[in-house]
Amino acid sequence: MKTLFTNVTAVTMDPAGPVLKDAFVAVEGMKIASVGTRRPAGDFDRVVDCAGKVMMPGLINAHTHIPMVLMRGYGGGCDLHTWLNEYIFPAESRWDDQSIAAATQLGLAEMISSGVTCIADMYMRTDIIAREVVKAGISANLSCGAVYFGAPEDFSPEKCGDCQATEELRKSWHGAEDGQILIDASIHAEYTSCPPLWQWVADYGQRFDLGMHVHISETRSEHEKCLEKYGKTPIALFDQYGVWERGGQAAHCVWVSDEDMEIMARKRITAIHNPYSNLKLGSGVARVPVLSRAGVNIALGTDGVSSHNSTDLFADMKLAAILHNGVGCDPMAVTAPQALAMATVNGAKALRRDTGVIAPGKMADLILVDFTAPNLIPCHDPAENLVFSAYGSNVVMNMARGRIIYENGTFLTLDLEKIRAEVKDYALPKIFG
Amino acid sequence: MKTLFTNVTAVTMDPAGPVLKDAFVAVEGMKIASVGTRRPAGDFDRVVDCAGKVMMPGLINAHTHIPMVLMRGYGGGCDLHTWLNEYIFPAESRWDDQSIAAATQLGLAEMISSGVTCIADMYMRTDIIAREVVKAGISANLSCGAVYFGAPEDFSPEKCGDCQATEELRKSWHGAEDGQILIDASIHAEYTSCPPLWQWVADYGQRFDLGMHVHISETRSEHEKCLEKYGKTPIALFDQYGVWERGGQAAHCVWVSDEDMEIMARKRITAIHNPYSNLKLGSGVARVPVLSRAGVNIALGTDGVSSHNSTDLFADMKLAAILHNGVGCDPMAVTAPQALAMATVNGAKALRRDTGVIAPGKMADLILVDFTAPNLIPCHDPAENLVFSAYGSNVVMNMARGRIIYENGTFLTLDLEKIRAEVKDYALPKIFG
Repeated sequence: MKTLFTNVTAVTMDPAGPVLKDAFVAVEGMKIASVGTRRPAGDFDRVVDCAGKVMMPGLINAHTHIPMVLMRGYGGGCDLHTWLNEYIFPAESRWDDQSIAAATQLGLAEMISSGVTCIADMYMRTDIIAREVVKAGISANLSCGAVYFGAPEDFSPEKCGDCQATEELRKSWHGAEDGQILIDASIHAEYTSCPPLWQWVADYGQRFDLGMHVHISETRSEHEKCLEKYGKTPIALFDQYGVWERGGQAAHCVWVSDEDMEIMARKRITAIHNPYSNLKLGSGVARVPVLSRAGVNIALGTDGVSSHNSTDLFADMKLAAILHNGVGCDPMAVTAPQALAMATVNGAKALRRDTGVIAPGKMADLILVDFTAPNLIPCHDPAENLVFSAYGSNVVMNMARGRIIYENGTFLTLDLEKIRAEVKDYALPKIFG
Repeated sequence: MKTLFTNVTAVTMDPAGPVLKDAFVAVEGMKIASVGTRRPAGDFDRVVDCAGKVMMPGLINAHTHIPMVLMRGYGGGCDLHTWLNEYIFPAESRWDDQSIAAATQLGLAEMISSGVTCIADMYMRTDIIAREVVKAGISANLSCGAVYFGAPEDFSPEKCGDCQATEELRKSWHGAEDGQILIDASIHAEYTSCPPLWQWVADYGQRFDLGMHVHISETRSEHEKCLEKYGKTPIALFDQYGVWERGGQAAHCVWVSDEDMEIMARKRITAIHNPYSNLKLGSGVARVPVLSRAGVNIALGTDGVSSHNSTDLFADMKLAAILHNGVGCDPMAVTAPQALAMATVNGAKALRRDTGVIAPGKMADLILVDFTAPNLIPCHDPAENLVFSAYGSNVVMNMARGRIIYENGTFLTLDLEKIRAEVKDYALPKIFG
């Protein structure tokens, strides 16, 4: 399949030529074949006129728990303890494969229609999630966040369900569909496991060269309790066990210390910033400008829908670009290009994927945003409008891995009517009774 | 004109019956005629089936500068001083009536399509804004924010352009079209004027029983300089001149003191919270939970598009509901019902209008939100979904003053094609060269 985009205005995220005008972008198979102001030779199966639209790399949602979309607004208005123990955990205990599949489809529909082409998801029943992602067409780093609540001396990987799940996932899915699915090693968090599990996950990740996805210092209390218990912060503690030997995706990082940031920069650990979730749950405000000055790679995530409660990464991009200005009383704390990088190239780096940039040879993960919508007129600067004025609803085309999977409100790989019915008739009764 | 809404699920904001299900809402002329679960008798000109949708009162954007929509993203990435002096002020000096009209139409289109039915706007050439608002169909409190940079001893209302404009506006427009337009008295801010102007505006407002719209303590430096110069905060200083005798709309209030809050509660001064603008410009975070505990009425505004850079009040509602949780590390700091109130009933109170509630006798300012969109499935609680998951783009109907002015993507009082052309061909060249 060869696709040619004409009349392209693009924010490319390519440092060599950040904004394209009156350009052509050619896609062949899964890759971007050429980018330039001269029409490339040859025949194309499809020509897409981009007049009135702005192209940018597809967004990378680097921290999600997709099936939690079914808990949207569930138990709202409760304190954290009540919300988790009386609402979320009981609901999660009732998952089955069919309801996970329906929830995953719904979550993917929401993300695809708002411009996401790549995710890093940590949840359970991950094989079902992988199957649905493959059908939907985006790329995904998937993991089964390992927990272990038993006594450390009783730990054995053979008897740990999450270790076994990780092994099965890796064997069945790592690299599947030309790398569409990558399996990451994953520790859910320091406070939900213990040293023998960390050691096993670290070793396993190193042995098979997997990414590493972990929740880090989301709340002040978990960070401080870790310091009390182990005399080290979660980042430093995991470093001692070799968790970060191939970098890592550290979700949240609200309470990481200056010393943690030094380790993060040195070990190529990406801080996955989840500004909506951190505000909504009262976790705090990650010190993004400090992380940035420390040389830490910063990507963006929505977290689960249960704590956002949407997956419009455009909204997170905007919030990431303004929150730190306001909290630090510095209107220059984070700029539009920095926020765009968090949602694209920085996410690609975190997920170890060759995407997030519009340039020849890169994965053809591309979206078009309708700049004739009232909320995007006028356009003095496409990057400013993309970060501060666009919503996911302005996305009119999503091409993932060279294939158009969403166009002008229509899903080409998902059946929204069927998903709605499956959620309503099967998944909701199953999970919520 | 009589309209009947059937199959209504509604978040009414009526303390007597907050959520309606399987209900009927009848509208006659400009007012809501009945609300209930039994179909009202009589014939209707139009019956609107609301299955799959949720109704709520139209949103009230209580602090805007509509024509600044043309400065969307203009001068982004600059510090405040450069932005104002090299970009915004020079552009504003080139306004003429035709470009203000085009900009107002564009700004109204953006707001109407995202569910706003009522605004409080402070800008210049306000007569042109009034004319366009009347045509578009929403309600507006309009003001010409008075500035005076001359020597206080030289002040005379006859020679002050903004005082004269206020007088002309009141005579021509106050109460026009059955109250669709109300003219507010307005002081732009403490730091852009002087005591004789405050006295004149305060007296004028009292004499004609006008509302009062003022920028208050937006930045730390303006608040502290006022304390240095006058020995009082802006709220206390204006109180001394009688500015608040009939309440007031105090935009921003980021740096108001505890003593200011006591005055605000006592004098019925509404704090207009502008969370996006305050974050983006690095002004800080208003102490909303403290204002609330002090008994101050809190409404919501987007501020001008130049400092947001959109007018989707759903986004401000969500941010208002999560920002204070995060900054104060308290997940219960602001609840969904509180945020909904800010965007509806509290705004109505600030603007002294009988709207913002779905109840018989109230102004028929009603919107419908499409709850079949992927980002609004499932719905465990309509209020939670409206605040945390909905975007303005989910609005599928806007009824203002009993008239449907927007439906399923179509504007019924505005010509979007013509607006786009007028902005592109006339206004942008005029203002930006």
